[in-house]
Amino acid sequence: MYSTATTTTESPRPFLTWQRVLDWAQEHYRCRTFAKDEKIPTRPGLIYLVERGAVRLVGTSSAPSVAADPVDGEDGSESDVELEEAFLGFVGAGQPFEIVAQSPFSLQSYAHVDRTSVLWMYWNDLENWPHFRREVLDAFRYQHQRKLLWLSTLGQRRTIDRLLGYLTLLVEEFGQPCDQGYCLPWPLTHAQIGSAIGSTRVTVTRLMGKLRKRNLICQQGDNLICLSSEVMTHTKPMGVVSRGDN
Amino acid sequence: MYSTATTTTESPRPFLTWQRVLDWAQEHYRCRTFAKDEKIPTRPGLIYLVERGAVRLVGTSSAPSVAADPVDGEDGSESDVELEEAFLGFVGAGQPFEIVAQSPFSLQSYAHVDRTSVLWMYWNDLENWPHFRREVLDAFRYQHQRKLLWLSTLGQRRTIDRLLGYLTLLVEEFGQPCDQGYCLPWPLTHAQIGSAIGSTRVTVTRLMGKLRKRNLICQQGDNLICLSSEVMTHTKPMGVVSRGDN
Repeated sequence: MYSTATTTTESPRPFLTWQRVLDWAQEHYRCRTFAKDEKIPTRPGLIYLVERGAVRLVGTSSAPSVAADPVDGEDGSESDVELEEAFLGFVGAGQPFEIVAQSPFSLQSYAHVDRTSVLWMYWNDLENWPHFRREVLDAFRYQHQRKLLWLSTLGQRRTIDRLLGYLTLLVEEFGQPCDQGYCLPWPLTHAQIGSAIGSTRVTVTRLMGKLRKRNLICQQGDNLICLSSEVMTHTKPMGVVSRGDN
Repeated sequence: MYSTATTTTESPRPFLTWQRVLDWAQEHYRCRTFAKDEKIPTRPGLIYLVERGAVRLVGTSSAPSVAADPVDGEDGSESDVELEEAFLGFVGAGQPFEIVAQSPFSLQSYAHVDRTSVLWMYWNDLENWPHFRREVLDAFRYQHQRKLLWLSTLGQRRTIDRLLGYLTLLVEEFGQPCDQGYCLPWPLTHAQIGSAIGSTRVTVTRLMGKLRKRNLICQQGDNLICLSSEVMTHTKPMGVVSRGDN
């Protein structure tokens, strides 16, 4: 990891004062670049902005698990009670994140791709850029709405519905047009998907096969998940998604 | 439903300018009281504030369900493909909510208890109360963090872990001290719980029995769910929860 020297951003939705904020972060050594899967240290009270790459949010249960019981194995669960990590979503370039809530789960952030660059500041620092502060808060409003949609799909009883709903939401927010439809720009393992939808790697692999057979999804190049245009006609991918700002 | 005549609020965390906002809403006929389970009509671009009672957020899938297949019945799912509603959380008195995101799920709000009173305004109206606007946006930051915790528990593979984690989060945020521990102030059906954690009413009833036998939960008076102090020692209930404002 090293302090980034570039000031370019790949953000599809650049903040208006983004360049000034970037310059400020460089000057104040509040900017760092991370290798793939490296943990990004965070503290409550600080606000983080993804300059480049993508951040993966992860939750870990710190509460004691209810003692394993063979009768509970109704959703294909294994009986080992290891520490479960849940994939909670991506934060793309140009987007803010913060980690405040901690109990009874603890939240962490990781660089999802190599050379992910993140800058940070205190909320008080944002007072210098009132318009930017507003955009950051609107971004959190938007993220909150997206999480309500995630919760909607995770409430579905059938794992295959949760899986397809979940992939649809991810592609809707981050997908890029490709030959087959819309493609996630970053790889995601079946274990990570399973950790998000309350299932296992094995089940996800089996159900992904089923979705592939029905031509609802396909795989692109470097293990990237694509959703067929057919699925996405029910929804508006990527930049088309309303940010809810008004 | 009728326009409320009272200006009192039960909010445990009153906004500073709450009374002025309430008066404004009365004057402008932007306030309405709803009966239990009555739908609260919402529009994007408007912000809603719960004056009294509690609002229940619900998500409905509008995407076509993947065709039912007996092999998928691995998590106790029924084969009927009715419209699935997911319970997405409460908004308590003094708290704001908005409904912007719509696709591929649609979000709705309902009065969870009788005489729930809600007022509304355009985001532009909030410009008149810059400090209040900030509090509303901070409340959304807080709600967003809570939803990340919800997603953490919904990522757990075992339904009983999701159930206990989910109840713990609800009681942590809304629970009130009682003889046995901490109690949810509103009833919640097993079907509603099931719809939140991707399970069925039948499974929730069975697992709630199991948690009761282990003295982790109990039922108080009017069908209210209580968590034992033992469970809650790992966490900080109610007002103690940090709001993340700084």
